Amino acid sequence: MERVRVSVNNNEEMVVTPWEVRGKIDYDKLIREFGTQPLTPELLDRIQKQTGELHPQLERRIFFSHRDFDWILQRYEAGEKFVLHTGRGPSGPVHIGHMIPWIFTKYLQDKFDAKLYFQITDDERFLQHDDFSMSESEKWAYENSLDLIALGFDPKKTRIILDTKNMGTMYDLVVQIAKRVTYSTAKAVFGFQDSTNIGMLFYPAVQAAPAFLESYLTGHNVPCLIPAAIDQDPYWRVTRDVAPKLGYYKPAQIHCRFVPGLGRGGKMSASMPETAIFTNDSPEAAYKKVLSAFTGGRATVEEQRKLGANPDICSVFAYDYFRFMNEKELGELRYNCLAGNIMCGECKQILAERVKKFLIEHQEKREKAKDHFEEFLFNPKDQ
Amino acid sequence: MERVRVSVNNNEEMVVTPWEVRGKIDYDKLIREFGTQPLTPELLDRIQKQTGELHPQLERRIFFSHRDFDWILQRYEAGEKFVLHTGRGPSGPVHIGHMIPWIFTKYLQDKFDAKLYFQITDDERFLQHDDFSMSESEKWAYENSLDLIALGFDPKKTRIILDTKNMGTMYDLVVQIAKRVTYSTAKAVFGFQDSTNIGMLFYPAVQAAPAFLESYLTGHNVPCLIPAAIDQDPYWRVTRDVAPKLGYYKPAQIHCRFVPGLGRGGKMSASMPETAIFTNDSPEAAYKKVLSAFTGGRATVEEQRKLGANPDICSVFAYDYFRFMNEKELGELRYNCLAGNIMCGECKQILAERVKKFLIEHQEKREKAKDHFEEFLFNPKDQ
Repeated sequence: MERVRVSVNNNEEMVVTPWEVRGKIDYDKLIREFGTQPLTPELLDRIQKQTGELHPQLERRIFFSHRDFDWILQRYEAGEKFVLHTGRGPSGPVHIGHMIPWIFTKYLQDKFDAKLYFQITDDERFLQHDDFSMSESEKWAYENSLDLIALGFDPKKTRIILDTKNMGTMYDLVVQIAKRVTYSTAKAVFGFQDSTNIGMLFYPAVQAAPAFLESYLTGHNVPCLIPAAIDQDPYWRVTRDVAPKLGYYKPAQIHCRFVPGLGRGGKMSASMPETAIFTNDSPEAAYKKVLSAFTGGRATVEEQRKLGANPDICSVFAYDYFRFMNEKELGELRYNCLAGNIMCGECKQILAERVKKFLIEHQEKREKAKDHFEEFLFNPKDQ
Repeated sequence: MERVRVSVNNNEEMVVTPWEVRGKIDYDKLIREFGTQPLTPELLDRIQKQTGELHPQLERRIFFSHRDFDWILQRYEAGEKFVLHTGRGPSGPVHIGHMIPWIFTKYLQDKFDAKLYFQITDDERFLQHDDFSMSESEKWAYENSLDLIALGFDPKKTRIILDTKNMGTMYDLVVQIAKRVTYSTAKAVFGFQDSTNIGMLFYPAVQAAPAFLESYLTGHNVPCLIPAAIDQDPYWRVTRDVAPKLGYYKPAQIHCRFVPGLGRGGKMSASMPETAIFTNDSPEAAYKKVLSAFTGGRATVEEQRKLGANPDICSVFAYDYFRFMNEKELGELRYNCLAGNIMCGECKQILAERVKKFLIEHQEKREKAKDHFEEFLFNPKDQ
């Protein structure tokens, strides 16, 4: 399979790979190009039947696409449990964009009583970045885990895997996967080149392993669901290809959109820190970042009162949409924005307060998480 | 670097790679092509000065080539100890050909008071062979370890590494190595192709790791000497390239020839079991194999008495040379063979008795080794 490089217009090419996301993202095109399925109303109904309530990220189609999620539901409806697998490359502090799918993952854990394998891919980050040391990787592995724990995951049902710490348990399985992936497949899926290091060539087998880990450790086949942003899809395509060769179920996936940053377009990215809200930002600094956010406002207050503003290109509205407003608030805001009843300054103020409040609370939970870190670590003996 | 494929004559091409050795081996050409150094008389003198005695495998140039062995000696003369690293791919039973360098390694351990990291590359064998299962790999890892232990290695100074069991300890180091090897280097050195699986692409980093393990675990730079057959040289070339990038010494090497089989030419190989003496052969079966060995004899007894035979193409003489005769016996045998004073049947009988005796004793030691297996296993906690 080729990496998706769809030319959106002459100036802006959509690029979506596990290492790079840029250009204007056309999610319908991604579904077609990646060969995934859209989340249909019928599927959402079935989810609601099992869970009692739909998570806003489903209602708003922040999670918008899947592979075999209908199959997972069918097994679940028939009484079979599944495990969850997602993760994080610990290259620096976590921002709100990273946490959006984690928040949804917690909903899945709670509603489906599902065990989560959360993989911290410290090896990948080290292999990928020339100037990245193992000790940096280790530091961020710990720091990022605290953010996960702060979201309220159940320590009894959550296992944090650190690749460099848990390879002793996983290596047998990783090698079995690696044996079934040729260089030619890996090159086609990930765009590897002659200059790619042999660690990166091997790495897809490492990222695949937790999808089979429950089956491997228990000795019977357990379905796995992977909630993650859609840029990780190439890894799961390879993982799914290998699954039947090892006698395991293909892992199902549910894909989310990229959380936009506070700038003009583009996803929230650690490489543009002024447009991202990091969990280690001081609440005041985050407050200020929001006040400097790009909006869909007009040149003058007069013009805006007369013509209204554009919420669809507004990063503040996007933040409200992804995390900070409920359905009713969003509807009202959208109406008032289009009608010119609310000015951008006011809107930014509301979001800034909410972001500040969220950070203050999250940072408290993050401090408490330090006492519970060990409880979450994967230990093959207590599986 | 290219794999060495030297055309010896029109019918017979010399091929020496870690996975394939065939054709008539020209060791001088290997030294030139691989860019190694011959073991000079001056170097042997320095070894003798340190060890008191030269091992027959040095005297007979069964170990014939090296990289930086002079440097290792220089450090040793200046009071610095070194570690040894060699290993075994556990694809089946061990034959005498495998044990020749191990016997020499024990001499090095004894004379230089050196710690040995013996790597059982169960992952490589599994990755390399389509029909090889992990449980087979595990079985032979254990069985082959018993052969090593039976040779009398010191449990206090010998650590058997099983790749699949010890990856937890090594993975950090392996990833650091893998980051410094590009696909293009690995392809050039090992001849990897598009159809090669990504496990094999990564594997050179795994085989390199024990060369740095003592330095990695102790935190200070410890020289390493690798005694092994010369077909493994590509792995060490890559390992040596990486060493300075990680701040470690380049591992030195000392290379041995291939032990011939009992057939007409070719090295002893598990793929031709009738020409190899396995340590799990019954002593009687081994006895019979020797009696069927290819010799340098003449068509008739009369002819041989008149013209003498040819020890240089004789597999029985080769066995005597590699393992079963001392210098005096060999000299006498060679003379009597060339002079037509001894017939092939007699010669085979002598070797067959010695092989049988060796096997009976080795198999007893091998049984006793079962009680000591655990003592030899690498455990990072007791380093």
